[in-house]
Amino acid sequence: MDQKYYAGIDLGGTSIKMGICTETGQSVRELERPTPQGHYKDVLEVFQEMIHQLVSEAQISLDTVKGVGVGVPALLDIEKGYIYEIVNLGWKNVSLKEELEVLLGLPCYVDNDANTAALGEMWQGAGVGARHLICITVGTGIGGGLILNGDIYHGAIGLAGEIGHVTVRADEGQRCNCGKMGCLETETSATAMTYYGRKIAEAGESPPLAEVLKNTGAITAKDVIDVARQGDQAAQKILDQVGYYLGLSLAQLSNVLNPEKIVIGGGVSKAGDFFMEPIRKNFKKYALSKVSETAEIVPAKLGNRAGWLGAAWLVHRNVSNGGSLS
Amino acid sequence: MDQKYYAGIDLGGTSIKMGICTETGQSVRELERPTPQGHYKDVLEVFQEMIHQLVSEAQISLDTVKGVGVGVPALLDIEKGYIYEIVNLGWKNVSLKEELEVLLGLPCYVDNDANTAALGEMWQGAGVGARHLICITVGTGIGGGLILNGDIYHGAIGLAGEIGHVTVRADEGQRCNCGKMGCLETETSATAMTYYGRKIAEAGESPPLAEVLKNTGAITAKDVIDVARQGDQAAQKILDQVGYYLGLSLAQLSNVLNPEKIVIGGGVSKAGDFFMEPIRKNFKKYALSKVSETAEIVPAKLGNRAGWLGAAWLVHRNVSNGGSLS
Repeated sequence: MDQKYYAGIDLGGTSIKMGICTETGQSVRELERPTPQGHYKDVLEVFQEMIHQLVSEAQISLDTVKGVGVGVPALLDIEKGYIYEIVNLGWKNVSLKEELEVLLGLPCYVDNDANTAALGEMWQGAGVGARHLICITVGTGIGGGLILNGDIYHGAIGLAGEIGHVTVRADEGQRCNCGKMGCLETETSATAMTYYGRKIAEAGESPPLAEVLKNTGAITAKDVIDVARQGDQAAQKILDQVGYYLGLSLAQLSNVLNPEKIVIGGGVSKAGDFFMEPIRKNFKKYALSKVSETAEIVPAKLGNRAGWLGAAWLVHRNVSNGGSLS
Repeated sequence: MDQKYYAGIDLGGTSIKMGICTETGQSVRELERPTPQGHYKDVLEVFQEMIHQLVSEAQISLDTVKGVGVGVPALLDIEKGYIYEIVNLGWKNVSLKEELEVLLGLPCYVDNDANTAALGEMWQGAGVGARHLICITVGTGIGGGLILNGDIYHGAIGLAGEIGHVTVRADEGQRCNCGKMGCLETETSATAMTYYGRKIAEAGESPPLAEVLKNTGAITAKDVIDVARQGDQAAQKILDQVGYYLGLSLAQLSNVLNPEKIVIGGGVSKAGDFFMEPIRKNFKKYALSKVSETAEIVPAKLGNRAGWLGAAWLVHRNVSNGGSLS
């Protein structure tokens, strides 16, 4: 049997990542390009150019590419591949799957980018071997994807996985973009760490952070982690609080979902065990013992390659289901 | 085509409920018997007697019964139908599916009783038409079952659905049997309402509950609800607190699971809207607006018939999947 390939696209607000992989998820070739900010058709054209470049560089025939998966930062109708809106790019009501299939002459599959990132980690990253995964990305915001029985769980209207908007400080904490207060996102995201870091810097509770603020005019989540690592008590308190809310929320969720693995990604997770240990400690404290004993909390492995690889898995799923076996 | 029937069994600590239904879930005949407390083989014999009695009363042939589903109050290996333990009945390591198939000469399917109750409500009760359901039973304890994509979700080791052990009052509240503190179960079950009701009765904060305690020597959850309904402020506070914890927990969970319906069963739910409204109010407050707008909170409909009907659905699932089509 001839070798088959899958293409995957991760559409971000600033860049497009695309890659081609084998049936077993081995990356053959990858590319990155800035995202055109104009009409959506410009983006589709870049998709087309990129796939032709990839196929040419990989010296394979377009015939052997069995389809293209796309992860989009959008609310969408997943079956139809129809985008309701991509706020950052000004897209509204785009029949992405339909248009892309005509343009590329290949079957296309679309899902939310948090979901494709989760699928990537399941297929080739920290989730390999697990069929029940909670994936969470701690970055500017908090994103999430649930993998149950080996596939993304979408819920009633495609909103499943919104772990960032779980209320952790009812009627307290910061006001969230979603309208509620004290969401996991407002208390534990990189943005939250920055906010609380600036607060202790300005209040004079953390001399090293006050120094950073004076020198650079800003505080980042990395600054908070760095000075905590160097022994700053006030910064450590912020990390303890983040670990408490993340660990508690993941325990609450895991008592109901009984996952095999919890994968934590996003820029902040690069701080490694220093960031993960407070989460693990609180998870263990608040989860049923049988649940915590059988669920590992691990850092994501693929970084920003998870998105396109997970998008390519959408093709894999379809091919495996007999959708376009050849 | 001949009519096909399914049998379902709900094995409880004190009674066995069994019924036969049609392929579309219409009850044909039902029976109830006390659960033998001795050797497990005695229970299996009662199962056998009951199914023969049901078939005879319904005037159908045993050949037309396509299988038997059983809901058990146990930790078990669902695929193998192997029971690790039923504490209340003193069962340990019973190959229930295997033994029952030999005894009855019919295919057997086994699941946890919280799960079969949830399946019953999905098939014939409050969940009809929904594919994504959170089911919760508020009784002596708090039980739960998740129906995702039209079937029970079991999780990594069959523990999914343990919503009663979600921590709602971290490091506060009552000590739970699970070892943790402030579980949903210790704060909102009928047992919890009884505990808090007795507390306000003894503290003189609720004259009507103090009266009940004096007259009967005990307080029930129904007493708390009854005096609250009659205007007792202290009892109303207990119900408000129960509504807060249940509504908040269901909102936290729904932001991640995006269900179509939340079904609340158990004795306490019979109090109707008086009990449900505080839950709905808090759910709406703490869930994402799109999540709460598309998820209804409804009382269970089937009472103690949910268990055997859901167990019968296990046969239906297998027949529909081509397991034993005839």
